Amino acid sequence: MSDRRLQHDVRIVGAGLLGTSIGLALTEKGVDVALDDLSPTAVRLAVDYGAGRPARDDDRPGLVIVAVPPDVTARTVAAELAAHPRALVTDVASVKVEPLDELRALGADVDRYLGSHPMAGRERGGPVAARADLFLGRPWVIAMHDAVARPVVEAVEHLALDLGAVPVSMTAAEHDRAVAMVSHVPQLVSSVLAVQLTKTSDAALGIAGQGLRDMTRIAASDVNLWLQILCANTAPIAEVLVSLREDLSAAIDALENPGKPGSRRTIADLMGAGNAGVARIPGKHGSTRRYAQLVVMIDDRPGQLARLLTEIGELGVNMEDLRLEHSPGAPVGFAEVSVVPEVEAHLIEQLELRGWRIAGAS
Amino acid sequence: MSDRRLQHDVRIVGAGLLGTSIGLALTEKGVDVALDDLSPTAVRLAVDYGAGRPARDDDRPGLVIVAVPPDVTARTVAAELAAHPRALVTDVASVKVEPLDELRALGADVDRYLGSHPMAGRERGGPVAARADLFLGRPWVIAMHDAVARPVVEAVEHLALDLGAVPVSMTAAEHDRAVAMVSHVPQLVSSVLAVQLTKTSDAALGIAGQGLRDMTRIAASDVNLWLQILCANTAPIAEVLVSLREDLSAAIDALENPGKPGSRRTIADLMGAGNAGVARIPGKHGSTRRYAQLVVMIDDRPGQLARLLTEIGELGVNMEDLRLEHSPGAPVGFAEVSVVPEVEAHLIEQLELRGWRIAGAS
Repeated sequence: MSDRRLQHDVRIVGAGLLGTSIGLALTEKGVDVALDDLSPTAVRLAVDYGAGRPARDDDRPGLVIVAVPPDVTARTVAAELAAHPRALVTDVASVKVEPLDELRALGADVDRYLGSHPMAGRERGGPVAARADLFLGRPWVIAMHDAVARPVVEAVEHLALDLGAVPVSMTAAEHDRAVAMVSHVPQLVSSVLAVQLTKTSDAALGIAGQGLRDMTRIAASDVNLWLQILCANTAPIAEVLVSLREDLSAAIDALENPGKPGSRRTIADLMGAGNAGVARIPGKHGSTRRYAQLVVMIDDRPGQLARLLTEIGELGVNMEDLRLEHSPGAPVGFAEVSVVPEVEAHLIEQLELRGWRIAGAS
Repeated sequence: MSDRRLQHDVRIVGAGLLGTSIGLALTEKGVDVALDDLSPTAVRLAVDYGAGRPARDDDRPGLVIVAVPPDVTARTVAAELAAHPRALVTDVASVKVEPLDELRALGADVDRYLGSHPMAGRERGGPVAARADLFLGRPWVIAMHDAVARPVVEAVEHLALDLGAVPVSMTAAEHDRAVAMVSHVPQLVSSVLAVQLTKTSDAALGIAGQGLRDMTRIAASDVNLWLQILCANTAPIAEVLVSLREDLSAAIDALENPGKPGSRRTIADLMGAGNAGVARIPGKHGSTRRYAQLVVMIDDRPGQLARLLTEIGELGVNMEDLRLEHSPGAPVGFAEVSVVPEVEAHLIEQLELRGWRIAGAS
């Protein structure tokens, strides 16, 4: 418990996945955590899981964490600022401008408020899915604003660090533009692509490969949760989508007029810019390092992939990424293993010596 | 060699990745394979790899396989039909209508021709990347047309089966519409999304998660190869993209007018249809079965993932899919393991007993 940075007593409003997970992690570190929720059942469940104790009227928390749905975040933060006039308040909603604007409109004491957003994977599940280690290694955006006082910045940074997250500072507007680009637009594009699959034949879907599967995986996301998120960040999302639609229209014009001078160049330029765009995404551990990929054939039975990875480990090679590919109708699969380029040739040689079939390398 | 179906001597025109891979596989089965290419160097290299022997003027092949770039496929097929008046001819180009139309316009003897398309992963690399097992378990589309004679259908089916592929029959037009939907449109959508990343900040890219990475992976594809493919299938691709643009525009209108009655419903309907579309993609082995996913935390050092998979194997559980998630700046990762729902609870319990931390389940 000596390794904790946060020195405040904490009150958490909202015993869902995020609130309960934060409560679990802070309780493990010896913080006094008071839990509150509109639903007494949710509070009892979170207490049973070890996420803290039920809130009391005489609590005097140093830090209040609001973890309620986006559309009630601002009014809940305002109520907490009023009810606890000495407390610092943060929230964990996945949009940041709208709640801040609402708080200002309500005349709330925003110098004690600082919004934040843990980028913690799947946002589903409720208290039952909560985990103390949900935030380990994830970015935790701290959405700075002009009026904020230093103690609340420090408290939220300490909270993120105590939970094993990586604090990342940006303004609320920068945050909302960033998540529009890296999260909200990809979600909508995946959905819009998947909608086209409702209009195609079973035969066409039968020859689908990994590309389509990757492109539509997140189209299976929860509609109600995403509706709230998207509707709270409409302008930044629309801005990126309009730009995307312009590029899409250029491609459509070129494809509808393939004989027109410049049509091929339009497609080539667009794909070239796509190459450049994807190259900007940082790789593992935030680096922009490129890895070598090799594709190893594996039988589809228990233990085969484990044997492959064990042997890669025995060779002293650290795998940077792993992806499985499936083959409809066949009892074989392919494991795409990413490694630093320096070890690629050695690894291929050694795996082939051990009887593995390398189906490709790049 | 007794297990082979194809009884013809084979001539392969084009010693690239596909031609050389086919040659390797057929030679292994004892077929006489004659290799030809505009480049004598490519032929010599393919022969060195064991893909067959150099073609001779007095060859009388029973089956000619044309494996040249899409834009020279038709004229090459026509030349082969004329040069070998008793031979059956197929090709492996990734578009099928345009070559067939061209052949008809050239007055070629199309009753001896049947186009095909092996859906064989990455289409890059040349003869050096060739593998006899490149087609194992992959769909091999046989693009039927009205004039085709039975012997050529049988020969191409035997070829696909001898190479370990799964023959799938459809018409040339059905094929081109199918690959437009499952391959060409996802490629362009990924590129168009990735283009937007050239216009965003490093800070935004720093909080990107797995969703964006999945959506833009194929945007890194080779521009020249894809330019040829896309430009040979313009109408079916444009048709799907126009439909996609309509859905995208509906989303943009809703996001630009969030207060307008019906706007939220538009977004919800679109995401719901996306849910329905992605559910239509067959899963592993062509089934539409849904799997349970659990997310297991792993340290980022050699052997950790292997140990996890070994233990899953020891528990007798067959993993249906595996996906790794990264965490910028942190020495931990997450393995998302898919299993049949019946074993999920047992697997979670046993893994936790063995000290693994389960970061989530669904």
